[in-house]
Amino acid sequence: MKDNEIHAMRHSLAHVLAAAATRLWPEIKLGIGPVIENGFYYDIDSGEAHISEDHFKKIEKEMRKIINEDLPFEHFTMTIDEAVKWAKDSGQTYKLELLNDLKRDGTTSVSDIDPEQLGIASEDAALSEVEFYRCGDFVDLCRGPHVASTGKVGAFKIMRIAGAYWRGKEDNPQLQRIYGVGFETKDELKEHLEMLEEAKKRDHRKLGKEQDLFMFSETVGSGLPLWLEAGATIRRELERFIVDEEIARGYTHVITPDVASISLYEKSGHYPYYKDSMYAPIDIDGDQYMLRPMTCPHHFEIYTQKPRSYRELPMRIAELAKLYRYEQSGELSGLMRVRSFTLADSHIICTPDQAAGEVAGALELIEHIAGVFGLNRGDDYRYRLSLGDRSDDSKYFKDDAAWNDAESKLRTVLSERGDDFFEAEAEAAFYGPKIDVQMKNVLGKEETAFTVQYDFVMPKRFGLRYIDEHNEENEAVVVHRSSIGAIERVMAFLIEHFAGKFPVWLAPEQIRVLTVSADDKQMLEYAREIKEKGQKLGLRVGLDLEAESVGKKIRASVLDKVPYTVVVGEQEVDSGLLKPRIRDDLSVSGREPELKVDNFLQSVANEASSRTLRSSL
Amino acid sequence: MKDNEIHAMRHSLAHVLAAAATRLWPEIKLGIGPVIENGFYYDIDSGEAHISEDHFKKIEKEMRKIINEDLPFEHFTMTIDEAVKWAKDSGQTYKLELLNDLKRDGTTSVSDIDPEQLGIASEDAALSEVEFYRCGDFVDLCRGPHVASTGKVGAFKIMRIAGAYWRGKEDNPQLQRIYGVGFETKDELKEHLEMLEEAKKRDHRKLGKEQDLFMFSETVGSGLPLWLEAGATIRRELERFIVDEEIARGYTHVITPDVASISLYEKSGHYPYYKDSMYAPIDIDGDQYMLRPMTCPHHFEIYTQKPRSYRELPMRIAELAKLYRYEQSGELSGLMRVRSFTLADSHIICTPDQAAGEVAGALELIEHIAGVFGLNRGDDYRYRLSLGDRSDDSKYFKDDAAWNDAESKLRTVLSERGDDFFEAEAEAAFYGPKIDVQMKNVLGKEETAFTVQYDFVMPKRFGLRYIDEHNEENEAVVVHRSSIGAIERVMAFLIEHFAGKFPVWLAPEQIRVLTVSADDKQMLEYAREIKEKGQKLGLRVGLDLEAESVGKKIRASVLDKVPYTVVVGEQEVDSGLLKPRIRDDLSVSGREPELKVDNFLQSVANEASSRTLRSSL
Repeated sequence: MKDNEIHAMRHSLAHVLAAAATRLWPEIKLGIGPVIENGFYYDIDSGEAHISEDHFKKIEKEMRKIINEDLPFEHFTMTIDEAVKWAKDSGQTYKLELLNDLKRDGTTSVSDIDPEQLGIASEDAALSEVEFYRCGDFVDLCRGPHVASTGKVGAFKIMRIAGAYWRGKEDNPQLQRIYGVGFETKDELKEHLEMLEEAKKRDHRKLGKEQDLFMFSETVGSGLPLWLEAGATIRRELERFIVDEEIARGYTHVITPDVASISLYEKSGHYPYYKDSMYAPIDIDGDQYMLRPMTCPHHFEIYTQKPRSYRELPMRIAELAKLYRYEQSGELSGLMRVRSFTLADSHIICTPDQAAGEVAGALELIEHIAGVFGLNRGDDYRYRLSLGDRSDDSKYFKDDAAWNDAESKLRTVLSERGDDFFEAEAEAAFYGPKIDVQMKNVLGKEETAFTVQYDFVMPKRFGLRYIDEHNEENEAVVVHRSSIGAIERVMAFLIEHFAGKFPVWLAPEQIRVLTVSADDKQMLEYAREIKEKGQKLGLRVGLDLEAESVGKKIRASVLDKVPYTVVVGEQEVDSGLLKPRIRDDLSVSGREPELKVDNFLQSVANEASSRTLRSSL
Repeated sequence: MKDNEIHAMRHSLAHVLAAAATRLWPEIKLGIGPVIENGFYYDIDSGEAHISEDHFKKIEKEMRKIINEDLPFEHFTMTIDEAVKWAKDSGQTYKLELLNDLKRDGTTSVSDIDPEQLGIASEDAALSEVEFYRCGDFVDLCRGPHVASTGKVGAFKIMRIAGAYWRGKEDNPQLQRIYGVGFETKDELKEHLEMLEEAKKRDHRKLGKEQDLFMFSETVGSGLPLWLEAGATIRRELERFIVDEEIARGYTHVITPDVASISLYEKSGHYPYYKDSMYAPIDIDGDQYMLRPMTCPHHFEIYTQKPRSYRELPMRIAELAKLYRYEQSGELSGLMRVRSFTLADSHIICTPDQAAGEVAGALELIEHIAGVFGLNRGDDYRYRLSLGDRSDDSKYFKDDAAWNDAESKLRTVLSERGDDFFEAEAEAAFYGPKIDVQMKNVLGKEETAFTVQYDFVMPKRFGLRYIDEHNEENEAVVVHRSSIGAIERVMAFLIEHFAGKFPVWLAPEQIRVLTVSADDKQMLEYAREIKEKGQKLGLRVGLDLEAESVGKKIRASVLDKVPYTVVVGEQEVDSGLLKPRIRDDLSVSGREPELKVDNFLQSVANEASSRTLRSSL
């Protein structure tokens, strides 16, 4: 199915929704009703009707009625004056406002609204008339396109309702935004709803609470997670993995302070331009200090502490850096939007000739790390080459030759790694083009996870220079890159990706040993011995020695998503053998092997150190 | 030699210094001249004489003259009025001020000055007269004691000069403070000066620069170190060691935010009492956020998130926590006094019955960690039991029974670990007694490195409770403890302790491989192969392939304090054997063994993982 066809279906569903609501509550006033990802919404001022979730069934029923009537969508036009009169006569005050704006000042005055919703072509300079659609009694200002008749809108479901200020302005009245999803077939709709259901189960905020990974405290403050033992364990494993992997690849790991004098950001030029993303200064004896929003200037201070030779390049200064960026309370969301986060950051300072190789090395590292989590390029993520715009000097540093050179370098690096990348115009940073890692989340939605950026501007501003082979001074190039992004976001992603079933190397509790009896001294002793042996191998082993049934204890371990559960009874003590239960997602063979204690523990230790996603038992 | 005898010698030296300066520049005015550790100083308003370091030889010469004259120290008294007249007549305006204060308001008005310097007994209530000493022409207000004559002052040296505000107040005139050291014998003086020389060589600020461990940047700000690759490597090894060791001992490692709402510190009671040690608040959308000065309230938020059972206790919540405490610019010093530091912190929440065991466990951990650095209780550090004062309700929380109980518990724990601890009255924290780890620094000076504190107050304030075996709610006890102290201070200490010669497990570069030739492809290849093999074993291997003589390359490696230096020449390539040079402090045998490459690398890897201080080669 083509994109524009499904778009027409969803757009038509928005009309059907508005028509149904109008049939049910004739006095309501309509805002706009555009198509969004997977569906549509309509903003409605429901007045005395107070439309809420309780009315969803009623609305859906009415919509189905309209669909069954198979009313044709009829296109027609009015002059702008006729349209204004229509809006006035029908009491559609919001439409009236839009039409009046349009009539008075043309399209610029309504640039906040999709032209589709205004019944105009976006290129329409001479506004002689506006377009309308009618289906049955319901008439709406609209450019279309629509399906032929209401019978052809596909499968739908009304999902939720939320308050939305008219035209996004807080001073305007708040309308009810009714969201729906729409698909061509019932099967597609079902699949989507199931995916949503699964995503809800995997929601990192939900799992974070269930698995005691992290918590929030109102007293500590919004957007400031407290990592509990289990979450801190995963995070520590993850961070050590990243740091060690980077060091093995020639990165120079440093540790720089999280606060710095405002003069550092003035020097870098981030202040005042970046001011809105920074927190208020802290006064220390009359000097202003800032919570750092980025590490670039810190790392450049290290580079410029002494003159540098080409022999020292590339210098890959890396840091697991705590950063602070302003977020409004309303924008904060679990671990995805926090007020302080830790970025696996690096600034590679190199000669222009080295830059392409360094970018390639960064991509190789990214792919290696993603691969450890079972994420593959093409399936789970892809690259976007974000280009500049030579005609826009305000958004992009003016140096056409540098842009051409850098863009061509990045394009070549990407081509050499395969052709599954795409390009996006005018998505670059101010100081150069970049490669965005577009990662699919658990809903299948693609988001920019982090980036590799080519920078030819900061070297000028910071005087990042080096003495070359011929004893001449040259300007370096900077590659800003992350290897995995912000730890908090990665944690959110991984919790959802693994649905809380972490691979052995990350699992907070890797093995749980439980006893058949809570009194049998030999059994208890044996269980403790297994734990101790495991700990000596660096494993995280839990014990369940409670006076509960084995079945209940096993269920608890399964619920806690422990990779290996080991039952210790009389037989195990006597034989020295164990039959570990393997968590379903890890098991390859599906069978439960019988193993000597030491062999079992050593296998798990090997699995952990090799960071495998499957059990070798 | 008794303390009071050496005190009298040093005090007499201060008089000799003042007498010599007065002979050289009769117009100078004298402040005070007390005894300090290892010596003495005298504050002098040298006026037009502008006494500086350049005058030290001249002053010492004059002092020796006075010493050779062997003038007796003669004690006499004056009434306070006579003394005032003396000060006026002799133009000693600073002494005059002290005497006038004393006359007008008694001792309280001069409580900032040691009574010894005022010629009064500290208990002197009825101030009928003040005491003086005369030696030769020189007369000084002074209570003594002094040696019999100037010939008996021992060996001395003038060390340095610094500005010092009169009576420590910035609005007062600045005097020149001349420091000297004094010892009974020339040998003792020599030994002391040699130790100072050694300490200077080991100064962590000096070594930090030489070994590229850390740097400071004026643009980033004072007291905010930037850790360079080598320093960050040591720090990382150290931090991982601590965290892993604590986890193995049942600590629950968490990660909590470095900033928190002011309401958290209001709840804990730290604010406003702790305000002067905290940085100014950061305004976020009208709420005040603070850089945290401690972790207690963060950890208590975790504890109180849900009701707790006695089964969960002891809960040893630990964190490698970044803290921010206000320090004046003038107080900042290398890594010893910084504005942000990372504390290996923990709060053990337990039942009152568990507390003694938990304190003992903390001491065991402390001794284990210290032992890894070769530091032994008794030789390098000892414990101080800091007690409360039942009569001082303003300084110590009023609960005599709780104090008795807690102090007795700590005393018992200490006694059980040996009797080499001492007690100090009125040195406890507000909320309970504590054990201070008194560590000797490179100058042999004892300082409190960190503490283990018993707290029966915070549990009340935060409602730290638990349900006991009988289903009844009880109040927990908190043990605040560190295992090693602040990472920055530990790093400063270890740099000086090891004089930059870090044990293998901490050394930023553990092995350096250097080639005889810079062109021989086989040699270069072989050297790179050794490096790769080492890296696979987790070792940090450096290469020196430059076109320099082997001798020069070896000297560079020795200068860089690399534990193992390996030369690769034709012979090594052919034989597959290496003759590693072992850094002098690591070598036990003194010989250079010949080893297969793999055996050598494996040995070093074993040394690193076992954190030994000596080479096993």
